[in-house]
Amino acid sequence: MQEKMGIMIIGINGAIGTTVSAGIEAIKKFDQEPIGLVTELEEFKELNLCDLNTLAVGGWDIIDRPHMECLRHHGVVGEKLLDKLDTQKFNVDIYKAPKVGITHHILETDGVNETDNNVTIKQAIRQITNDIEDFKKKNLLDDIVVVNLSSTEPIIKDTSIIESLDAFEKAIEENNPNIQAGLVYAYAAIKAKVPFVNFTPSATVGTPALKDLAIKEKVAVCGNDGKTGQTLYKTVIAPMLKWRHLKLIGWYSTNILGNNDGRVLEDPLHKETKIRSKSKVLSDILGYDDFYHRVEINYYPPRGDAKEAWDNIDFEGWLGARMQMKIDWVGEDSILAAPLVVDLARLINYSQKKGDYGIAKYLSSFFKDPIDNNDHNFFNQIQLLINYIK
Amino acid sequence: MQEKMGIMIIGINGAIGTTVSAGIEAIKKFDQEPIGLVTELEEFKELNLCDLNTLAVGGWDIIDRPHMECLRHHGVVGEKLLDKLDTQKFNVDIYKAPKVGITHHILETDGVNETDNNVTIKQAIRQITNDIEDFKKKNLLDDIVVVNLSSTEPIIKDTSIIESLDAFEKAIEENNPNIQAGLVYAYAAIKAKVPFVNFTPSATVGTPALKDLAIKEKVAVCGNDGKTGQTLYKTVIAPMLKWRHLKLIGWYSTNILGNNDGRVLEDPLHKETKIRSKSKVLSDILGYDDFYHRVEINYYPPRGDAKEAWDNIDFEGWLGARMQMKIDWVGEDSILAAPLVVDLARLINYSQKKGDYGIAKYLSSFFKDPIDNNDHNFFNQIQLLINYIK
Amino acid sequence: MQEKMGIMIIGINGAIGTTVSAGIEAIKKFDQEPIGLVTELEEFKELNLCDLNTLAVGGWDIIDRPHMECLRHHGVVGEKLLDKLDTQKFNVDIYKAPKVGITHHILETDGVNETDNNVTIKQAIRQITNDIEDFKKKNLLDDIVVVNLSSTEPIIKDTSIIESLDAFEKAIEENNPNIQAGLVYAYAAIKAKVPFVNFTPSATVGTPALKDLAIKEKVAVCGNDGKTGQTLYKTVIAPMLKWRHLKLIGWYSTNILGNNDGRVLEDPLHKETKIRSKSKVLSDILGYDDFYHRVEINYYPPRGDAKEAWDNIDFEGWLGARMQMKIDWVGEDSILAAPLVVDLARLINYSQKKGDYGIAKYLSSFFKDPIDNNDHNFFNQIQLLINYIK
Amino acid sequence: MQEKMGIMIIGINGAIGTTVSAGIEAIKKFDQEPIGLVTELEEFKELNLCDLNTLAVGGWDIIDRPHMECLRHHGVVGEKLLDKLDTQKFNVDIYKAPKVGITHHILETDGVNETDNNVTIKQAIRQITNDIEDFKKKNLLDDIVVVNLSSTEPIIKDTSIIESLDAFEKAIEENNPNIQAGLVYAYAAIKAKVPFVNFTPSATVGTPALKDLAIKEKVAVCGNDGKTGQTLYKTVIAPMLKWRHLKLIGWYSTNILGNNDGRVLEDPLHKETKIRSKSKVLSDILGYDDFYHRVEINYYPPRGDAKEAWDNIDFEGWLGARMQMKIDWVGEDSILAAPLVVDLARLINYSQKKGDYGIAKYLSSFFKDPIDNNDHNFFNQIQLLINYIK
Repeated sequence: MQEKMGIMIIGINGAIGTTVSAGIEAIKKFDQEPIGLVTELEEFKELNLCDLNTLAVGGWDIIDRPHMECLRHHGVVGEKLLDKLDTQKFNVDIYKAPKVGITHHILETDGVNETDNNVTIKQAIRQITNDIEDFKKKNLLDDIVVVNLSSTEPIIKDTSIIESLDAFEKAIEENNPNIQAGLVYAYAAIKAKVPFVNFTPSATVGTPALKDLAIKEKVAVCGNDGKTGQTLYKTVIAPMLKWRHLKLIGWYSTNILGNNDGRVLEDPLHKETKIRSKSKVLSDILGYDDFYHRVEINYYPPRGDAKEAWDNIDFEGWLGARMQMKIDWVGEDSILAAPLVVDLARLINYSQKKGDYGIAKYLSSFFKDPIDNNDHNFFNQIQLLINYIK
Repeated sequence: MQEKMGIMIIGINGAIGTTVSAGIEAIKKFDQEPIGLVTELEEFKELNLCDLNTLAVGGWDIIDRPHMECLRHHGVVGEKLLDKLDTQKFNVDIYKAPKVGITHHILETDGVNETDNNVTIKQAIRQITNDIEDFKKKNLLDDIVVVNLSSTEPIIKDTSIIESLDAFEKAIEENNPNIQAGLVYAYAAIKAKVPFVNFTPSATVGTPALKDLAIKEKVAVCGNDGKTGQTLYKTVIAPMLKWRHLKLIGWYSTNILGNNDGRVLEDPLHKETKIRSKSKVLSDILGYDDFYHRVEINYYPPRGDAKEAWDNIDFEGWLGARMQMKIDWVGEDSILAAPLVVDLARLINYSQKKGDYGIAKYLSSFFKDPIDNNDHNFFNQIQLLINYIK
Repeated sequence: MQEKMGIMIIGINGAIGTTVSAGIEAIKKFDQEPIGLVTELEEFKELNLCDLNTLAVGGWDIIDRPHMECLRHHGVVGEKLLDKLDTQKFNVDIYKAPKVGITHHILETDGVNETDNNVTIKQAIRQITNDIEDFKKKNLLDDIVVVNLSSTEPIIKDTSIIESLDAFEKAIEENNPNIQAGLVYAYAAIKAKVPFVNFTPSATVGTPALKDLAIKEKVAVCGNDGKTGQTLYKTVIAPMLKWRHLKLIGWYSTNILGNNDGRVLEDPLHKETKIRSKSKVLSDILGYDDFYHRVEINYYPPRGDAKEAWDNIDFEGWLGARMQMKIDWVGEDSILAAPLVVDLARLINYSQKKGDYGIAKYLSSFFKDPIDNNDHNFFNQIQLLINYIK
Repeated sequence: MQEKMGIMIIGINGAIGTTVSAGIEAIKKFDQEPIGLVTELEEFKELNLCDLNTLAVGGWDIIDRPHMECLRHHGVVGEKLLDKLDTQKFNVDIYKAPKVGITHHILETDGVNETDNNVTIKQAIRQITNDIEDFKKKNLLDDIVVVNLSSTEPIIKDTSIIESLDAFEKAIEENNPNIQAGLVYAYAAIKAKVPFVNFTPSATVGTPALKDLAIKEKVAVCGNDGKTGQTLYKTVIAPMLKWRHLKLIGWYSTNILGNNDGRVLEDPLHKETKIRSKSKVLSDILGYDDFYHRVEINYYPPRGDAKEAWDNIDFEGWLGARMQMKIDWVGEDSILAAPLVVDLARLINYSQKKGDYGIAKYLSSFFKDPIDNNDHNFFNQIQLLINYIK
């Protein structure tokens, strides 16, 4: 392979987006160790994945501020690296995000001016297509992957429009207001033969409509919702309980996070999509559902991007004895997510080149809610990955 | 199969031993649900393992007190069940443990009178053989398995005696004082064609001498050291870190426990064997060892058998960011161990019947320090188990 | 003193009510050690408080089931004691609670039949007065104290009715539907010269109307909201931060509890009253409020009455360094509350006898939100108590 | 007051010493907020304590490396401040520590060359006296306070030498090898009429010999062992248990720390002094000692100066119910200690000026093991402080 690839990120100025771009820059310019990048493990050596040193990063955002300023604002990347990046004229191509779908009210109050970009869905698709083309030319790229990192969208009320490709294309024609931004980007990317990674829980390539399109256009796609923290360890602890025949009685999970993601998720409309994505994992792994599972997400500004999760797990053993396990996870959301974005882009591009298209199920281990795979056991998912790359 | 099996436990009056016998009795008499028994999972249905309702439990102990009294003393099993067991004349065949090997000083101060049973190693072997025969006849058993649940023994100083079967048998002849009790039982069992499970970290069937004997005598054996709590979750968390390429920096583990096991492990001589058994797992799973791993075990009487473990895990991600995970495990040692003892007895008996002898590596997932298997990844070990029973 | 006292509890069949009655019975009949009873500390010896061995316990409830059945249902008291109480014909006088004020919808769905007892407020007052008289005669008591342990009531919408005694008495005449049960009991008790303890956050003796009444009738009263768990340790940790000049940045508190209290508090209407009562403490102690304080309460059935609280505290020290403290509290709500109920009854009765009436501020240390005292520092509150009893 | 004061620190190049000097510099030059400084609370305004802007910091060390290099090495102070301090030619007067008493073997292996400074005790006293004089002149100071921040010394074996001033002075004459460095500094300081603060658990001004000397020379002194983390919160949690009459059953405390303090404390000789200092607090506060108290200190390099403490507290309530509280403290040792050093220097100087000499008991709240005060309850200690400064 070794051809030049570009990643176009929806939400490039967000916490994860900027952490991706800064991290890639640090690898290129300052020989940063690629810790956190799964595709840099020994096991992936022979795949000949795209070279990190020629990787281009760009994308869209509704926030119209300099990328470097956003990077500083999020407070994820250390000051030392920030200062070095600054003086190196760190540059990223950013396109204005077309305004379609339901507005994020919370971000609006934040001074985001979205109204000057109000377009029809068809116009939006055209613009996205042009942006992809422009980015490719400008950076002399062989391949492009689009990755969705935008804030969680509300659940679609009228699901009839996503149930088939025909219905969806009709809805586009009618400029149906139920079509949200994620669907628009995914549609445009696939039509342009560009692989699409849905790192969010929003409805995109997992809908019947777009799954059909991906197959029709022979494009590799994957999702949903990057598995970075609490759900990640849930999917290793639950199999442990299963294989010791310890009966789960209750699992209480709370999350405190202070970044934009946290603010958007305070909005019950957006929270519902996220909680739904987080809830399924346990019963699928354990094979029963007579336990109490509760997931809370709370906005807590003091922590910024350094999310903290706390879990209390009640389980029963021999002779009905009750036991507990408690986990306190002090992770950094964007630090954990950023390398996975790069991994997914490299691997979906690899699949595309190999001629594999449609849902890339072998990438399930990267997602909280993998499309077309009910097996949430992390180690079964890793087995899929290992088998694919062998 | 469905033949009648018996489990003979070394340390039958201990916390785990009594929890095994009480649990089996509860299953037989009061339809107790077999939670915690791995071999009662769906996946094992077709193996036709020995019937729990005809299972006989007995064994040896140095503590010469009624079994029911010991059961009450340990405080593991709830009062309600205890009262029911009492009125049912709950009976277990207990043989006086032959006194060989180094004395457990701590237990001695506890009023354990071991001196009336001082014998040569050869006499001890003969006695154990007779006890096995007696137990089998008395309970009309088809098969027997011996399981070692005695307290952790010190590390053997003169390892030359276990390096070959010849050297070992010569040492027996010489009544060599370096031969500890665990070795004596294992030798006697194997010679009697009885499978042996080493649930402790003491040196028994994992020594070159006894591995050779097991092959020579065509007997199935397994060990070492039942994986019940902290090491269990270590072997699922570490693979998670590995497969996210998160770099482990340090892992601090402390354990507080108030049972006899805790008291014996306060003795540095015994602690060393245990800590050694717990330490290897991380580097084997991760593939590197430039991290700081510390395991502490502290005797803390207020908890009795309800052990608590606390872990602090420091790791590094993308751009060198430091993150942490903390785990607090409030388990009950004997509750977690007891069903595994039954599982191992059923499975090693299954292997023996199938004609598989020597070290049963497919049982690695049950052990902290599986003999002849450096792969401590719990899920790889489960894969071995699944493959074997398919 | 040494005269015979009775405690009448509103909600006597609830988790705390039954734990009070069972505990007192255990002290009387089985010499139970009075652990948890502050008034049994050395410091209170010379006050000659009412004798625990002659204490009578009774009260009202909307749940019309045998007291012993309710006691078993809550699962707070151990089985051993329950069995002993049973055979001793453990008896408690229970009066049917008059149905006034807003209905607890959650309890209704629980099969509580409240409709057969629908009365006007004036009728309710008359009934309560009669019940107090009846309980006193039947048990040959010298003194009575009424303690409110009923579920948290919603915040009163129309506060004009509680702003003065006149307005309140006019509202009684008009049978104003804004008057909730707590106010009715408190009014009836005070009119009957009976001290009243408000162990809940509901509006009762802390309202201007009833404070005036208590002074007019020369009755000792106190409240609000028993301080048993999370708020208790908050009021000792916050003073520690204050006196080390460590700057609080954020305090996140979550609670999981599975008893009726938890179910009622899931209802946003009731939760608001509770959260409000829990929120004030930090800024009052610290003297500033530029920190983020969040309190969550979640219903989590697996735990029953064994509440768990988890706190994350972010603070800043010398040179702006950020530090954290985390607390995990595994308490039993009713076990912690029950002895305080007895303490408060004994002490408020002591005040009444001494001739001190109105709000008993010296009892602030027992309450989350002490009436007429903004000093939430637990140790300042204890100082008030020590000074009073000296 | 407002006269110019200097603090001479024994161990000025250590983690706490450098954090003191850097912090004072930041206050003087960069208007750093004095968070963590108790004496900057409102309550101390009128005492007219020495001005922070004219405070001089210096001292002794056995480590002969530039102060700025040591500051960087410890990794306590953030890089941003370090860079600013550098360019400002941040200067601190450092004197070579006279080598007396038992050697710290651990530090020796670290390349500390102590042999070129081997002197008799009398010579050492003379040198220290000269250094104090020199520091005073050079910096034009009105007052000086000496603060001991050196590593914990072993327990003195032959206590006869510290039982009276005569015996001690005789031991000096004889150059008795049992006299350790802390005693020598304290003796020299008091003889020079300079107040002495013992921030360590080592034996100094708390010995009968030096207490007598302080009274004879009319010098104010205080100690022992700065209360910064785990013991601090112990002394607020224990009084809470006491005043709720909750019975302590067991308290398990573990500490992981990766700085030099941690390394020295791994040495059992030094650890004993520390553990002893930490153990007394609970029984003194609670008034009973039939509980299990265990304190562990473990060296864990990954954390550097960012110490972590974990506590498990088992207690009993009403009806013998068992409950637990767990605390995880992620503090920074030197960040917490440094401002207390400045507070103690300011306050002991204030006492000296006021004419109060001997042990300053009102400073007990600052110490783990306050000299001549068995009341470890933090809030009683704060009351002493408040009363003194009123």
